[in-house]
Amino acid sequence: MKKSRLEAFSDGVVAIIITIMVLELRVPVEGKDSIKDLLPMVPFFLSYILSFINVGMYWNNHHHMFYLVNTITGGSLWANLNLLFWLSLVPFGTEWMASNHFSTWPVIVYGGILIMCAVAYSILATILASHCGKNSELAIALGKDWKGKLSIVIYIIGMACAFWYPRIGCGFYGLVAIIWFIPDRRIEHHVRNHNHAEE
Amino acid sequence: MKKSRLEAFSDGVVAIIITIMVLELRVPVEGKDSIKDLLPMVPFFLSYILSFINVGMYWNNHHHMFYLVNTITGGSLWANLNLLFWLSLVPFGTEWMASNHFSTWPVIVYGGILIMCAVAYSILATILASHCGKNSELAIALGKDWKGKLSIVIYIIGMACAFWYPRIGCGFYGLVAIIWFIPDRRIEHHVRNHNHAEE
Amino acid sequence: MKKSRLEAFSDGVVAIIITIMVLELRVPVEGKDSIKDLLPMVPFFLSYILSFINVGMYWNNHHHMFYLVNTITGGSLWANLNLLFWLSLVPFGTEWMASNHFSTWPVIVYGGILIMCAVAYSILATILASHCGKNSELAIALGKDWKGKLSIVIYIIGMACAFWYPRIGCGFYGLVAIIWFIPDRRIEHHVRNHNHAEE
Amino acid sequence: MKKSRLEAFSDGVVAIIITIMVLELRVPVEGKDSIKDLLPMVPFFLSYILSFINVGMYWNNHHHMFYLVNTITGGSLWANLNLLFWLSLVPFGTEWMASNHFSTWPVIVYGGILIMCAVAYSILATILASHCGKNSELAIALGKDWKGKLSIVIYIIGMACAFWYPRIGCGFYGLVAIIWFIPDRRIEHHVRNHNHAEE
Repeated sequence: MKKSRLEAFSDGVVAIIITIMVLELRVPVEGKDSIKDLLPMVPFFLSYILSFINVGMYWNNHHHMFYLVNTITGGSLWANLNLLFWLSLVPFGTEWMASNHFSTWPVIVYGGILIMCAVAYSILATILASHCGKNSELAIALGKDWKGKLSIVIYIIGMACAFWYPRIGCGFYGLVAIIWFIPDRRIEHHVRNHNHAEE
Repeated sequence: MKKSRLEAFSDGVVAIIITIMVLELRVPVEGKDSIKDLLPMVPFFLSYILSFINVGMYWNNHHHMFYLVNTITGGSLWANLNLLFWLSLVPFGTEWMASNHFSTWPVIVYGGILIMCAVAYSILATILASHCGKNSELAIALGKDWKGKLSIVIYIIGMACAFWYPRIGCGFYGLVAIIWFIPDRRIEHHVRNHNHAEE
Repeated sequence: MKKSRLEAFSDGVVAIIITIMVLELRVPVEGKDSIKDLLPMVPFFLSYILSFINVGMYWNNHHHMFYLVNTITGGSLWANLNLLFWLSLVPFGTEWMASNHFSTWPVIVYGGILIMCAVAYSILATILASHCGKNSELAIALGKDWKGKLSIVIYIIGMACAFWYPRIGCGFYGLVAIIWFIPDRRIEHHVRNHNHAEE
Repeated sequence: MKKSRLEAFSDGVVAIIITIMVLELRVPVEGKDSIKDLLPMVPFFLSYILSFINVGMYWNNHHHMFYLVNTITGGSLWANLNLLFWLSLVPFGTEWMASNHFSTWPVIVYGGILIMCAVAYSILATILASHCGKNSELAIALGKDWKGKLSIVIYIIGMACAFWYPRIGCGFYGLVAIIWFIPDRRIEHHVRNHNHAEE
């Protein structure tokens, strides 16, 4: 089976998830039109940024991973739906966290949703890699999946931390996004150099 | 006519249907930030899972079916819109059912929407198969459409059951999802073995 | 320029327009769980069906028209955005009409939105046809655009009628959908017979 | 890496942004069904038009720009997400501006969002052009990026103007849309003439 429709459907769902979060940016009521009236929005805005980066990161990784996949199976369709399901809970976690100014339980639940996304992503990757074979490009690329495991560890540290200092817990979640952001650029440079060498 | 745009449009509509249901997961009001405050969300969460699996199942089947179709007609465009129409009512049924804690009439109406989806899917499949011809791959694959008929029977049993035990009725709806989930994997294994044999 | 992205973007916008209308199907408040509680939804449901068919019809026609187009210009990008703009007002018209039980002004405004959609569609068709040339397949197919003109006439009759009998006015809007639905099937049969003859 | 998925994802996000703004067109409450009851909607309608044109303009330009790009890098994925992030704030700015009848601060914040979109677009264009090389079609097309710079200057004038006459400030924002609209047509004519000459 071809991968194009799975990609298109995933793109659609992720595009909606990332965009409906903006509906949670509650506009100040009518008559509240000074710049100070935006102050209550700050936690919403901050958690929107955090979630936007996280969901965007999954889309980027999804994009990279499926680039190396040629055919998909029924199992990977369901594994992909599983990932989309957990991603779809991110807007809920974001809003609960923002409307309670990053207090303990909302931050922990948000972290739990992020962990489930990471686990679902790992399951999808494992199914795709096992179908492609041990020597496939995908299996090799995923072989050193220390980033995935490290992410889950940091999420757990963040959740534990949130029992005492929930805002620092949130900082740990942001750290994961930074970890994923930087190496992607490194791989890019590597690929670019590789291509230059070939030329 | 090519099928790619019909697929893209259907992907878009199904992606939105599956994602807007998350807007129904009502976030506890401000100040309610303990883990107990999530308790009222449990019925919403459970019915969201049920609907997510059901809609995801239709997308998977739609994906499989159109994979075997090469060209589409005006009739199949309308039959596809008919399917999307009934699927678009799923979020409404889900919310009514969840906000009334799976009481009788909401569960019956939800079952009715699922039946209409199943019927609309059958109509679409019949139109596509009749256009492809009796010996087409699609007609052969659909020839044993016992799953489609069995689904409708189980939905009716679930609806009847809901007059006395609505939650058990819901269990029947979940059973249909399981029925569709398992054989898909069996077919996959068959295809995989077939491909191995060819190699 | 290629047409694929314009198609994909239009598919996305139309998919959202057709689906967000379901958010207007106001679920009865908690505790209202008998079948009678669905009665106030009837006007919403009826106007949802009418709008779903209308928007679906535009998507079908858009699909057919762009099938005959090979390249697009900057002008057609803006003409397409203009069509999408007027279509995006359909959900608003639908909700106003439904929440007032098909009273005079909402029905007239709804008709006005449908007329603007029809005009925007004609503008798009004219721009595309003029770019393709007089002898292009598209220009020939559109040459007998009596359906487009007839639609606008019926919409105007419906709007005039709505001053006295708004529900009959709505019937006229439904009539247009039927007119577009039937000939499409006729063309299909023609195409099919043509293909059979070629075989 | 191929550009098709980045295009599809961007199309999806922009389609949602442009369409969810229609949810802000607050339908008059039940019983309010005369034509006068639409009067309070006028500022919402006007700001919807302004935002629809602005977002549509970005989509058109995005479409043109990626037409000239062949491969994309990880850096451009993030630069594209950055653009989508700022575009996703447009619905918020639109609603705040409309619900306060174009008063000073909302108009300034809206202008600020538009500037950030313009800056994010420039960053994306610069990254894409630097990857394509100095003599690429894209670099040449962007070389005379006076429109991008002029837009930012006009936005700043509009924001400054909004301190005293916020509605005139809004006029400046509209002016930018007109500037982008007209030259696009000029380029089209050029391309068309060029193609005619080749024939």
